[in-house]
Amino acid sequence: MTQLDPEKLVGPGDKASSADHSILMDQIIMFGDSITQGAWVPGGTGATISHAYQRKLDVINRGFSGYNTVWGLDVLKQWLPRKDERLPKIRIFFVWFGANDACLPPSPQAVTLEDFKKNLNTIMDLLRSPSSPHCSPSTQIVLITPPPVDADIRNAELASRDPPRVPDRDRKHTQAFAEAVKEVARNAKVPSVDVWTKITATAEQQDGGKLDRYLSDGLHLTAEGYRLVTEELAEVIIRQLPHLHWDRLEQRFPHWADFLTPEQRF
Amino acid sequence: MTQLDPEKLVGPGDKASSADHSILMDQIIMFGDSITQGAWVPGGTGATISHAYQRKLDVINRGFSGYNTVWGLDVLKQWLPRKDERLPKIRIFFVWFGANDACLPPSPQAVTLEDFKKNLNTIMDLLRSPSSPHCSPSTQIVLITPPPVDADIRNAELASRDPPRVPDRDRKHTQAFAEAVKEVARNAKVPSVDVWTKITATAEQQDGGKLDRYLSDGLHLTAEGYRLVTEELAEVIIRQLPHLHWDRLEQRFPHWADFLTPEQRF
Repeated sequence: MTQLDPEKLVGPGDKASSADHSILMDQIIMFGDSITQGAWVPGGTGATISHAYQRKLDVINRGFSGYNTVWGLDVLKQWLPRKDERLPKIRIFFVWFGANDACLPPSPQAVTLEDFKKNLNTIMDLLRSPSSPHCSPSTQIVLITPPPVDADIRNAELASRDPPRVPDRDRKHTQAFAEAVKEVARNAKVPSVDVWTKITATAEQQDGGKLDRYLSDGLHLTAEGYRLVTEELAEVIIRQLPHLHWDRLEQRFPHWADFLTPEQRF
Repeated sequence: MTQLDPEKLVGPGDKASSADHSILMDQIIMFGDSITQGAWVPGGTGATISHAYQRKLDVINRGFSGYNTVWGLDVLKQWLPRKDERLPKIRIFFVWFGANDACLPPSPQAVTLEDFKKNLNTIMDLLRSPSSPHCSPSTQIVLITPPPVDADIRNAELASRDPPRVPDRDRKHTQAFAEAVKEVARNAKVPSVDVWTKITATAEQQDGGKLDRYLSDGLHLTAEGYRLVTEELAEVIIRQLPHLHWDRLEQRFPHWADFLTPEQRF
């Protein structure tokens, strides 16, 4: 077997392996609620970008079903790497909350709009503030808005439970949380993926505004819903973060043909 | 928000978070060639088990297209965590090679059957030998056999290239590598997932032996091929490693309802 130039053995990220350390693959983290947690379903956004970034970045599921930003922050502080730890570098950190924060009181998941915005900023500060133990200036944060809800379907399902539960979602209320995500992103100068508008506009153009092709239960996404999310997310990467597009990144370890001697190549 | 019992904040793996360390999620690693690398395609085995192990184990793609066990070992030594590093614990380590090792000479990917078996043992020794810097006694190794090949389709495709290439696969030769995987697994007392037999037997029962529902190009798997792999892999977990089945593992962080006060629960 050929002796490889050590420089060729590593792609982006760590500069070299050594006898003392293993090479770490850089990561994309998807942090959010059940819509993130479920995103490795067939056609889901997590599975799709895992496939797209193969050999380049590991895509990690940090979705927590039922969580709002309060509880998300609570666990985030526990698992987010500290700057003094040698752990995989996070290249892109997607933050996708709002679907539960936008619950209507008296739901215990409800968070006020002001607290939601504050929590999103706190999440970003954990990665961006020099005084944060988790500070990671090379991490690109991207915020994602919650999808629209079909409150009639969601609330009818709640009413059919035994005992029946009161309505906990409202389309306008969730829309305000989607708008808040975009406002926070603008102020923080980070990209946002406007899932709310993408799905709402597509439904208006193609389905007379009906959301059932995109939402399975008035709240969670179908494969077609996730497909629109992925499409919009790819648009944001292409337009605003082209250097992080999967086609622009190098594979982390050599192409198999790099192991061949010149005579073996064909 | 309720003050949680710190013991409840962690699932299996790390015993507790601390101010000094972030909590690490345990992992499943899928190590292999292009059939592993492509396994996050819709319906792919990697995507399917990522979904199944959500909130429990991160499933990591370490598939390297075109690699045989010689080149796989070369990079494995670079990225496999060393025992003195604080990195995610590997709970299951799938090793899925043979599709390229079983190339026919003069292909530079060809590895002899004896070397293939030796390399599989060396891969396992890296994780199991007390003298290995990567020794990880708590990691469960599982070997996977290569799928059957349709040499007629594969070799016709090679012949159609410009310039034409000589045949590089043979069904009996790949079968010998599948048998070798099972032999090595038996001797090492680790489970094996017999993809070769599963696909071959299903094709014989349902398709008169034809493999085109399971192989896209005579060599790589279709979604239906991956579905059979996942089915067989799940069978092996259920029968031989039930403690590692996704339904038996605890979620790593609290259920959202654990954040509620008793009065808030319903």
